[in-house]
Amino acid sequence: MVFGTFVVDTSSSPHAKLRPVPIEAVRLKDRFWAPRLRLLQARTLPTQYKICEETGRVSNFRWAAGKEAGGFRGYFFNDSDVYKWVEAVAFSIAGMRDEGLLGLVESVVDDIVGAQDEDGYLDTYFAFERKGERWTNLRDMHELYCAGHFIQAAIALYRATGRRKALDAALRLADHLVDVFGPGKRAGTPGHPEVEMALVELYRLAGKGEYLELAKSFLDNRGKGIVGGSRNLIDHEPFRQLKEAVGHAVRSLYLDCGAADIYMETGEKELLSALENIWRNFTGRRMYVTGGAGARHDGEAFGVDYELPNVAAYAETCAAVASAMWNWRMFLMTGEGRFFDVLELALYNGALSGISLDGEEYFYVNPLADRGGHRRQRWFDCACCPPNIARLIASVPGYCYSLSEEGVWVNVYAESVARIELGGKPLTLEQRTEYPWDGKVELELDPGEERRFAIFLRIPGWCRGASAKVDGRPAGEEAKPGSYLGLQRTWKAGDRVELDLPMEVEMLESDPNVAENAGRVALKRGPIVYCFEQADNPGFDIWDLVLTAGSKVEAVWQGSLLNGVAVLKGEGLAFDSDWSGGRLYFPKARREPRRVEFKAVPYYAWANRQSGPMSVWVRCQGA
Amino acid sequence: MVFGTFVVDTSSSPHAKLRPVPIEAVRLKDRFWAPRLRLLQARTLPTQYKICEETGRVSNFRWAAGKEAGGFRGYFFNDSDVYKWVEAVAFSIAGMRDEGLLGLVESVVDDIVGAQDEDGYLDTYFAFERKGERWTNLRDMHELYCAGHFIQAAIALYRATGRRKALDAALRLADHLVDVFGPGKRAGTPGHPEVEMALVELYRLAGKGEYLELAKSFLDNRGKGIVGGSRNLIDHEPFRQLKEAVGHAVRSLYLDCGAADIYMETGEKELLSALENIWRNFTGRRMYVTGGAGARHDGEAFGVDYELPNVAAYAETCAAVASAMWNWRMFLMTGEGRFFDVLELALYNGALSGISLDGEEYFYVNPLADRGGHRRQRWFDCACCPPNIARLIASVPGYCYSLSEEGVWVNVYAESVARIELGGKPLTLEQRTEYPWDGKVELELDPGEERRFAIFLRIPGWCRGASAKVDGRPAGEEAKPGSYLGLQRTWKAGDRVELDLPMEVEMLESDPNVAENAGRVALKRGPIVYCFEQADNPGFDIWDLVLTAGSKVEAVWQGSLLNGVAVLKGEGLAFDSDWSGGRLYFPKARREPRRVEFKAVPYYAWANRQSGPMSVWVRCQGA
Repeated sequence: MVFGTFVVDTSSSPHAKLRPVPIEAVRLKDRFWAPRLRLLQARTLPTQYKICEETGRVSNFRWAAGKEAGGFRGYFFNDSDVYKWVEAVAFSIAGMRDEGLLGLVESVVDDIVGAQDEDGYLDTYFAFERKGERWTNLRDMHELYCAGHFIQAAIALYRATGRRKALDAALRLADHLVDVFGPGKRAGTPGHPEVEMALVELYRLAGKGEYLELAKSFLDNRGKGIVGGSRNLIDHEPFRQLKEAVGHAVRSLYLDCGAADIYMETGEKELLSALENIWRNFTGRRMYVTGGAGARHDGEAFGVDYELPNVAAYAETCAAVASAMWNWRMFLMTGEGRFFDVLELALYNGALSGISLDGEEYFYVNPLADRGGHRRQRWFDCACCPPNIARLIASVPGYCYSLSEEGVWVNVYAESVARIELGGKPLTLEQRTEYPWDGKVELELDPGEERRFAIFLRIPGWCRGASAKVDGRPAGEEAKPGSYLGLQRTWKAGDRVELDLPMEVEMLESDPNVAENAGRVALKRGPIVYCFEQADNPGFDIWDLVLTAGSKVEAVWQGSLLNGVAVLKGEGLAFDSDWSGGRLYFPKARREPRRVEFKAVPYYAWANRQSGPMSVWVRCQGA
Repeated sequence: MVFGTFVVDTSSSPHAKLRPVPIEAVRLKDRFWAPRLRLLQARTLPTQYKICEETGRVSNFRWAAGKEAGGFRGYFFNDSDVYKWVEAVAFSIAGMRDEGLLGLVESVVDDIVGAQDEDGYLDTYFAFERKGERWTNLRDMHELYCAGHFIQAAIALYRATGRRKALDAALRLADHLVDVFGPGKRAGTPGHPEVEMALVELYRLAGKGEYLELAKSFLDNRGKGIVGGSRNLIDHEPFRQLKEAVGHAVRSLYLDCGAADIYMETGEKELLSALENIWRNFTGRRMYVTGGAGARHDGEAFGVDYELPNVAAYAETCAAVASAMWNWRMFLMTGEGRFFDVLELALYNGALSGISLDGEEYFYVNPLADRGGHRRQRWFDCACCPPNIARLIASVPGYCYSLSEEGVWVNVYAESVARIELGGKPLTLEQRTEYPWDGKVELELDPGEERRFAIFLRIPGWCRGASAKVDGRPAGEEAKPGSYLGLQRTWKAGDRVELDLPMEVEMLESDPNVAENAGRVALKRGPIVYCFEQADNPGFDIWDLVLTAGSKVEAVWQGSLLNGVAVLKGEGLAFDSDWSGGRLYFPKARREPRRVEFKAVPYYAWANRQSGPMSVWVRCQGA
């Protein structure tokens, strides 16, 4: 067993190309992620704990343990919020010790474990008078979902701290699941997938084949009507026959995570081909330009192909997080850059927009256009998103590097120092860069003794004209966008790799089938998708803005704005609409457009100032 | 009791401003409606009957009567399709006798009445073994909905033919409803409104107050949770508190019809104010430019304000029919032109698009843009739309005129002769016009003896610069769009009114909140909304068309196209998109626009030729 806190530990997975590098190995020192990791510890995780206590989410465990009077409070799946918080804390303290959080999480684990039954069952909603209802409604009651989150949290906490209390409880819970749903027992599958990936990860940690088998049986049992046969629950057909990203977006993407995990252990070709089909449909026809997923409020679901409305977008924060999780697995499986591209897109945009810059407010829904009514909230009754974005951010150091037999893969560019074990020997990698604001990256190596291995540099899909130098001399083959540039050589201490990823402002258009985006463009620079926010453009309504194709747009660093961002500036036209209106349809008014200067800000940072119109996609005229 | 076939008989309604003129009084001779009325008799109604027989819809009645073996076939609400067909036949033969259809409808009525129980109950699904389940599920099982349709059909057939068989059965059924849901009995309300308007109409015909009371109690009982309390069923709050057009669009609009009918009998101010609020919300924020209603496939429902997607539009044919029905009632109630404007819009566009030019294929869903996959079908398992559009078309002669104490109201312009009774004396009105293709209307009068009364000429809301002459001399006050121009004088035989309704091509834009329509325009001329269909524009993909604001668009008559239509022709630009694509988002290509000539056809006539892209709203650039 390799030591370290991994999100997904493929170290021994026979069908994974890459092994991860643990969170502990990477110390971020950049202006983008490092402050977010500190804020997470200082603000986000403590306030999330406080709200979990205030709303009964933690006391539910004490109540179920018989330690407190009262009763169950909140939704029946509220345990999972606490588990995700525990997992986020584990990732966070793995990278950066915090005694206060450690003490807090241990006391929460005491509460959790206290609520576990003799037989290993754990779900506070089904305590006392509801004991008889356990496992009677797999479709709706989320017991397997909660179990999965507990298992993941326990694994993360064990890896981060070495303490076994939660892990032992998770093993008892998993054994209980095997007792209930194992071979020759009841055929089950969860209404809300999640437990599959948890069980595979527990199998990786504990080596017990039953866990993998159970995860596989849950996957195999889809499409049999066990949870009602609905498309929304991805129970309408067997997983291996899926050709599209369908149903409830978070459930769908969690299920893909589980299937990818199972594939990496079993190597079953049919699974890989289903995953490939789903991925192509998702990224080619059903994903927002922000990496957001799930077009529909109704059913929190994927729409049909090209159904990607902006104002009406659902794009749940959890779904973007789930896409990052899934694409991380697909990347570890294959080493293909296209998967990390989607991870990066979700991470910097559609997921990150789910949390405010002060780390204390959240979006559940992430529209790509708004008139000013959609604002972040401090919490939700159904609070899946806040701890989910917290655990994603906390796990960022774990995505930075990965390893293969050939060498080390550099996935995330960020000012940092990493101390990695490669081929049984230490390798130190120091990155100097202003990424994601600038595409120049310097990488300094210290492999200890001189030795031969490869460095694979990620060439993002958005990047044209990338080039690399080693010790000042051009190096590597053609740097193809969306691939990894391999530099195979004998490396010695002090070797310097310079990577240049030209970061031009891109004016993106959509497949013309996306009805709401016809004639519109979105601005993107590097991994960052921009939006137009009213706060930056007082002279006109940003919904009235029309860009001119090919016109110059400049990136300008503004250190004091939105915690430091590169803004995009340019000239456009404003065709002032009749916003006072009242008439739904009316003869087109003759309008003289006005020349205006516009400013766009990163989408992830919107709705952190006064409310007002926002849009990612704006009209564009001309060739 | 006034003789004649009325859709809604407000002759004695104390709170209606207008009385209708029956279908029998108006003989259409125009190129637009007259051929459709003939086609309805020759094709649509006979084939609908045939399919109703083939699919068990008629034999269900014989089975329930014990005359045929087998069992119930199809959906539990299939009786209603037969009832709507009967009503359509009644309207059709009222205007134009047809012995074949008369014989057919009488035999169907025999079948229907044979299935009625001793106690008056009538619903073939609840025969034999399901008798015990009658009235046990008002939310889902549509018994009251079916009852309403039977009552309406029976009334229409009685009015059209004088035969009482169906009417007597309807009275027995209504008495049964009073027995079950009347004063002091069970509190009920239907999951699918419809019976309210039927009961009010039966009250108008039979004079029995219990029917009106029952209709009112069904309305009063909304918002009490009797049918589950959902927004989709408009049971989330009391009707009188509604401020918006919400829920399942057809149910919502049928309920509005019933409420309007109740208002016209009771004069209750709160009802009027709720209706006004709903109407303003519907027409100001939730109605398609075609008069279509109901944005969402999910729940077949209204969306939120300005949620009016084009490709994803639901806009069920039945909902446009229901809007016409509701606006007819609002118009009879008030005499205000704005209501007839909405009726006209739905009639010529969003409803009429529901039936093919050959009268034998139907749309259930009416999108405003499509890539070519959406095609009419010969029938549906849930077949509410085909007989609904049939009964609307059959009733068109009944919308042409109405009466008030002051005189006669001209609502529909169409080449026709009407023999009306005004003030107890005959009045003949002959219209000569090419409306809806041309806005010039000549009206020749024969009031018998010379006498004084007013003629109210409808000035459509879309018309600017309307003017009238009487016997060659300018007449009337200012012809305000959306109002009626009153010509009060002493009329004599041979008097001629000339009305000029300038019919310019309008380039319409939307309230800027309608996200998908930003930067787009729709073309409309007179009452006809146009669309761009690929079949007429072989040189470019019509989704790539960009118009120039203010550019010239001409109407040209094409007698051999689509049964005769005025097409719109003009010049635009085509920015050829990458339709082969595959990439969802990509850097904006530099494209040289091509100058192209475009042709647009009436929206109602789309999808009658080869399949291909279609769009109502097209991009437009420039001031």
